[in-house]
Amino acid sequence: MQTPAGPKGTRDFYPEDMAIRESVFALWHATCMRYGFEQYDGPMFEHLELYTQKSGEEIEKQLYAFEDKGQRMLSLRPELTPTLARMVAAKGTALKRPIRWYSIPRLFRYEKMQKGRLREFFQLNLDILGIAEESADAELIAASIGMMQGLGFTKDDFTVHISSRTLLEEMFLAVGIGAEKLQPLFGLLDKRHKIPSEVFERELFGIVASDIHAKSICEMLNVASLADLKTIGGQLPSINKLESLFALLDCYGVSDFVAFDIGIVRGLAYYTGIVFELFDKNRNLRAIAGGGRYDKLVGLYGGPDTPAVGFAAGDVVLGEMLKEKHFSVSVPRSKVYVATFDTSDPAFAIQTAQNLRNAGISCEFSLKKCNLGKQMEQANNARALIVIFVGGEESKAGKVKIRFMKNGDETIVAEAELVAFINDALDKS
Amino acid sequence: MQTPAGPKGTRDFYPEDMAIRESVFALWHATCMRYGFEQYDGPMFEHLELYTQKSGEEIEKQLYAFEDKGQRMLSLRPELTPTLARMVAAKGTALKRPIRWYSIPRLFRYEKMQKGRLREFFQLNLDILGIAEESADAELIAASIGMMQGLGFTKDDFTVHISSRTLLEEMFLAVGIGAEKLQPLFGLLDKRHKIPSEVFERELFGIVASDIHAKSICEMLNVASLADLKTIGGQLPSINKLESLFALLDCYGVSDFVAFDIGIVRGLAYYTGIVFELFDKNRNLRAIAGGGRYDKLVGLYGGPDTPAVGFAAGDVVLGEMLKEKHFSVSVPRSKVYVATFDTSDPAFAIQTAQNLRNAGISCEFSLKKCNLGKQMEQANNARALIVIFVGGEESKAGKVKIRFMKNGDETIVAEAELVAFINDALDKS
Repeated sequence: MQTPAGPKGTRDFYPEDMAIRESVFALWHATCMRYGFEQYDGPMFEHLELYTQKSGEEIEKQLYAFEDKGQRMLSLRPELTPTLARMVAAKGTALKRPIRWYSIPRLFRYEKMQKGRLREFFQLNLDILGIAEESADAELIAASIGMMQGLGFTKDDFTVHISSRTLLEEMFLAVGIGAEKLQPLFGLLDKRHKIPSEVFERELFGIVASDIHAKSICEMLNVASLADLKTIGGQLPSINKLESLFALLDCYGVSDFVAFDIGIVRGLAYYTGIVFELFDKNRNLRAIAGGGRYDKLVGLYGGPDTPAVGFAAGDVVLGEMLKEKHFSVSVPRSKVYVATFDTSDPAFAIQTAQNLRNAGISCEFSLKKCNLGKQMEQANNARALIVIFVGGEESKAGKVKIRFMKNGDETIVAEAELVAFINDALDKS
Repeated sequence: MQTPAGPKGTRDFYPEDMAIRESVFALWHATCMRYGFEQYDGPMFEHLELYTQKSGEEIEKQLYAFEDKGQRMLSLRPELTPTLARMVAAKGTALKRPIRWYSIPRLFRYEKMQKGRLREFFQLNLDILGIAEESADAELIAASIGMMQGLGFTKDDFTVHISSRTLLEEMFLAVGIGAEKLQPLFGLLDKRHKIPSEVFERELFGIVASDIHAKSICEMLNVASLADLKTIGGQLPSINKLESLFALLDCYGVSDFVAFDIGIVRGLAYYTGIVFELFDKNRNLRAIAGGGRYDKLVGLYGGPDTPAVGFAAGDVVLGEMLKEKHFSVSVPRSKVYVATFDTSDPAFAIQTAQNLRNAGISCEFSLKKCNLGKQMEQANNARALIVIFVGGEESKAGKVKIRFMKNGDETIVAEAELVAFINDALDKS
C-alpha cells in the first residue's frame, strides 16, 4: 500500500513544525495574559444554523457541513464568534461585564487554496463584551499591536487599517443609496483589493444601478484622511467616534501603527461599527488580522443586548511573515541524556533517569542495548545539552561523569549531588 | 429567538472550565517533557479509509464521517494513532529512531453518552517507535504513572493492569481455537466488565462453538498471576516477555502501581503484543488510559516495518477523578488593576497599564467612566492581586498609591519605580 496523504488544505505538524506552532501560541497566550484576557473555548462543530443565519454568504458557502448519526445538521466551526455569542447569550446577565475573553481555535473553511490560505487553520481571537464606548475598540487594537510586537514585528512590518461600517452606511444613505443595497455593497468593497478594478466597477454599477451613486462611492473611497472626509461628509457621528478612537490610540502610544482607511469594511455580515484590519506594510499578503464591532450578535442569539468588539488573527499569513523573518525554534527533546557503560544492567540508566525526572528534569536514555558511540548519536538526536555517563568506573565510588555537549567539557559529580548539579547547570545554560 | 445549545456530547469551556482544562494539559506537557517526548499533531479529520481498515469495527461505527465539497469521504479523527502511523510511514526511514512523540489531540466518537464518555474529548497520546524490546513498553508504562503522579494521584488511586495479546493468542491457539476466532474473541473480552456474565458466556460460546474451548478460556481468565499462568500455560515466549517487563518496571520503582491482569485485551484491532490499561482503584469508572504494542501499523500504511508502542489517556474519566479530589484552579484574569481618581482623562490609566504590559505584567483598567467603587468591583471580577490608583493627589508628586487585595495593605511608590516594585511584589505573592 502506498502511504496515504492527509486531506487537502490540512497540515501535518512534525515536531519541528509543532515547535514553531507552539511557540507562536505561547506568545499569543502571553499577550492575552498581559492585556488581561481569560481563555475560553467551545465545541469544534456547532449546529449548522448557528452559522447559516448570522455570518453572511461568503462563510456559508465555505462550511464543512455534515449530518451526524442522530440526523443533526452540524458544521465544523469556520470562526469562533458565533460560539462566543451563543455562550454569552446562554448565561444571560450572569457573566460579569466587561467580558474579556480570548481563545486559540482551530477552524475550517472549504476555500480555494492559495498563499496564506488553508482549509484548516488556527486563529487568535480576542473579544470585549459589555462596553459600547470606543475605549474597548482602542483596547483591542492596542492588544492586536501588542500581539504583533510579541512576535517580534515592528511598525515597519505592519499597519492597522481602521474604518467604520456605520460611517460608510451614513455616507451611502446620505447620497441616497437604498438601505437594501448596503450588505451587497459591503461584500463588494471587502473584496476590492482582490479583484481587477474593471470588475469592481462593473459589479459596483450592478449593485447601485446609478452612475451618480457609483461615482460618489468611488469618490468616498479615494478619501485619504478623516480631515478630508469631513470636507465631503460633514460632521457625522461616526467621524466623531473615529476621532475619539484615534485620540485614545495616541494615549496607548501606538499612533505610528495605525491609519484611517475608508476601504476597510470586513466580509462578515454581523459587523456594526468600527472595523479594522492588519496588513503587512507592502500589502503583499492577505490580512494578518481583522476585527470590529458586532453589537447585535448576542441579542440575535437570544441573549441580552450586549455591545461587543473583537478581533481574530490567523496563523497562516502570520506564518508566512515569520518565515520571511527566519523565525525558528529548536528545543531539546531531552535536556539530559543518560548514557551507560554497562549495557548488561538497565538499572543504572533507568534509576538515574527516574531520579532526574522526579525532580522535573527532561531526560532519556537508550531503550536498546548499544555501544557508547550509538548512545552519543541518540544524545545528539535528542538535542541533549548534557550527557551523564553511568555504570562505569566512577560508579563504584558513587560518582558519575558529566559531559556538556556544547563545548565537550567534562566533570565528575557525586551521585548524591547529581540532581542539584544538573538543575544548576541547566539554569545557567 | 431562544439561545441555541451546543451539539449533544460536546462541552462549552467557560473560563473557569478552561482554566482546569489548561491546567491538566500543562501537567501533561510537563510529564512529556520530563520523559523526553516531543510534540506533534495532525489534521482534525482524515480520509475516511485511514480508519475503516485498521481501527476495528467498534471505532468504525462511531465515526463522524462526511463528504466534503470536493467529494472526498472524510472523518473527524476518533483517535490519533492512524495519523501518527501515516505521518511516520510517509517519512520512510528519514525520521531518526527511536521516535518519541506525544500529542494532546481533540477527538470525536459518536457514542452513547454516559459517565466518563462524551462525543468530543481530549487525549494525551505518547508513543515510542523503533524499539521492539519491552524496554519501550516499560518506559511508556512508567510515563503513564508519571502522568498520574503529575496530576496528584498516588498508588491508592489507580493501578496499571498489564497483559499481552500475544499471550492470549498463544494460549488460545494452544488449546485448539482457530486463528479466525481471535479477533472476535478479543472484541468480546474487551467488553467483559461492561456486560452481564451470562451475556458474556452466551457470546463466548457463540464464537468458539465448543464447551471445552469456552471452559478453557474461562479458566485462563481466572488466572491471577504470571506464576499461576506458567503452571497451566508452560514456558510461553510471551510469559518471558511479561516477566522481563515486570523486572524493568521494578527498576523504575513503580512495582506498587502495576499488576498482571489477563483480562486486559484492548478494543482496537491493531494491537500486537503487550497491552495495558489504567483503572481507578475501585474500578468505578471506565479505563483512565490504555495502550500497547502495534508493531504492524506503520508497515500497513506503506512505511518501513516499525515496532511501536503507545498509550492514550482521555480527559473525561480523569476529569471525574479530579473532581472527586476537588481539583480546582483560580488564576487572576489580570494580576494588576489600574484604578483612576480622574475619570475625565483616560490617559492616566492607559499609560500606566501600557507601561506594565510592556514589562510583561498582566493588567487591566476600566473601559467605562465610573466611580472608584465600581472600579473596585471590576478589580474583584478580574481577581486582581494588586490595585494601582492613578490620577489622584499623589500623581502630582510623581507617585502612585498601591493596594494589596489580599490584606488591604497600602503603600506609596514613585512612578519611576512602579514596574520594578510590582514585579517584585508579584514574585513574592
